[in-house]
Amino acid sequence: MDIAELSDRILNGDRRALARAITLVESGRKDHRALADALMVKLAGAGRQALRVGLSGTPGVGKSTFIESFGMMLVAQGLKVAVLAVDPSSARSGGSILGDKTRMERLSRERSAFIRPSPSQNHLGGVARRSREAVALCEAAGFDVVLIETVGVGQSETMVAEMADLFLLLLAPAGGDELQGVKRGIMEIADMILVNKADGDLKATATRTCADYSGALRLLRKRPQDPDDFPKALTVSALEEAGLEAAWGEMQSLAGWRREQGHFEANRARQARHWFAEEIRHSLLARLETPWARDRMAVLADEVAEGRRGIGEAAQDFLTGLGS
Amino acid sequence: MDIAELSDRILNGDRRALARAITLVESGRKDHRALADALMVKLAGAGRQALRVGLSGTPGVGKSTFIESFGMMLVAQGLKVAVLAVDPSSARSGGSILGDKTRMERLSRERSAFIRPSPSQNHLGGVARRSREAVALCEAAGFDVVLIETVGVGQSETMVAEMADLFLLLLAPAGGDELQGVKRGIMEIADMILVNKADGDLKATATRTCADYSGALRLLRKRPQDPDDFPKALTVSALEEAGLEAAWGEMQSLAGWRREQGHFEANRARQARHWFAEEIRHSLLARLETPWARDRMAVLADEVAEGRRGIGEAAQDFLTGLGS
Repeated sequence: MDIAELSDRILNGDRRALARAITLVESGRKDHRALADALMVKLAGAGRQALRVGLSGTPGVGKSTFIESFGMMLVAQGLKVAVLAVDPSSARSGGSILGDKTRMERLSRERSAFIRPSPSQNHLGGVARRSREAVALCEAAGFDVVLIETVGVGQSETMVAEMADLFLLLLAPAGGDELQGVKRGIMEIADMILVNKADGDLKATATRTCADYSGALRLLRKRPQDPDDFPKALTVSALEEAGLEAAWGEMQSLAGWRREQGHFEANRARQARHWFAEEIRHSLLARLETPWARDRMAVLADEVAEGRRGIGEAAQDFLTGLGS
Repeated sequence: MDIAELSDRILNGDRRALARAITLVESGRKDHRALADALMVKLAGAGRQALRVGLSGTPGVGKSTFIESFGMMLVAQGLKVAVLAVDPSSARSGGSILGDKTRMERLSRERSAFIRPSPSQNHLGGVARRSREAVALCEAAGFDVVLIETVGVGQSETMVAEMADLFLLLLAPAGGDELQGVKRGIMEIADMILVNKADGDLKATATRTCADYSGALRLLRKRPQDPDDFPKALTVSALEEAGLEAAWGEMQSLAGWRREQGHFEANRARQARHWFAEEIRHSLLARLETPWARDRMAVLADEVAEGRRGIGEAAQDFLTGLGS
């Protein structure tokens, strides 16, 4: 299938074409990269826009259940929902946080939903580019909401926030008044905190935890892209499907405000610049992975290790050989 | 002063020459870099070797007091001790974890001790290269032990471990049985854990904490560079100057074993290779910081942000222009 045809089918909402295109952007082959590039430019021309919602939560907070309940609620409102996972750890474990669709059984059976497991990649930079392009593909295929899920591992949260319009942090009710050791850096990128499991015995704890986070969020420095009452914390129960409409209402209200104020588009443009710079850094460093580069570095490294050459001078020597 | 003279003076243990050389390696100027390189090669030829001891501990564990007491104990044994700080956060705060010498008043007055505050740098890579060269300079100046201190911020601990022969983690007694949230990655690079404040009311807690860490260390995967009983945890009291000789004995015993087994030299060679590769990556990415590169990236990034060009193709265009 050529790019024009693939593009047309995606724009027509053909799910098999979408899946195929995602496989294409996930490919490491050089000719595939060129095709993927052409496809992305072609689809960008269509100008379709979904709401890209990043979602992070450590195992145990009920993320799968939340995505399922939240996704079903959106579908019930007539919206089309895509779920993608960004999982930098899957390279090591060989597995995937969205390993199979049984995690979201109901949602995966919906015709208006599309669930794509995360690819096994061995490079975070590669994961990022591919995931971001997969998001844009879902957008072109006519999905209204693209949920980009990640576990809180290393820099995956920052990465997902850098490809989302909104970033949600899903947390569990905390015993005591400690804030579950949520890293300040993560708090600072969250647009909304959702305290899940606000049901049964945990309901009161969830409410208290939510108040704690509300307080913590108010202490953070105000960001220009936030209206007065954001970022905010809410309680939800994915299990009892409670609070999901309210949370969705808040997301829409935030996204709407950002659209009106110009922050929405400005953010997407900033993200494109960010990922472009990342792509360049990635390509530049990839030049160190050729057989010549590896061999030459090994020879020079020995000379440096033996104290025969200075590290800076040897590095310059290498870079000259590299053609830099 | 030329490099030959500077080198001679350092080898003669001239402290002012040492301080001057450290300022030279800390300089970002290109001509200074070349001089620093020449100096490092010259001094490496002398083949002097100190024991490089990395030390990490978050604020509040009594790190300054420990360094002072431990340093004084070494000095009393007739050893020369240098203390360097690696503080990637100082760039932001403008301050320095070794801001002045009043933190280690007694040690700073000792003729056999040399204390150097961390430079304010704005790049972790730069900090690393400079710190590592400062360590080598102290070594050449005849110091027997070089303590490389860091706070547990971001990747500074891994960085310090990569320039040390031994890596110590200084911890405070923990209330309860939780292990103070010490990151597993940090546990895995520690050769010894020292539980400080094993004095007064905290003595029993320190002993219990130490036992907890001993247990945790035993659960880690065995590393080839460790004899059977390492890594290990010990209690010390920097305040009462207790346990310091025992800790030093353990350090010597570990270093001795590693020397006999060839791990000591192998580790240093591996570190040199690591820093050489880092230097190359750093130099390569520095090419993106020229005015031409910044301007060109900005133009292309706009085209990418507007969806007019593919990210991969635009990146290739940029790299071609860069001469890569």
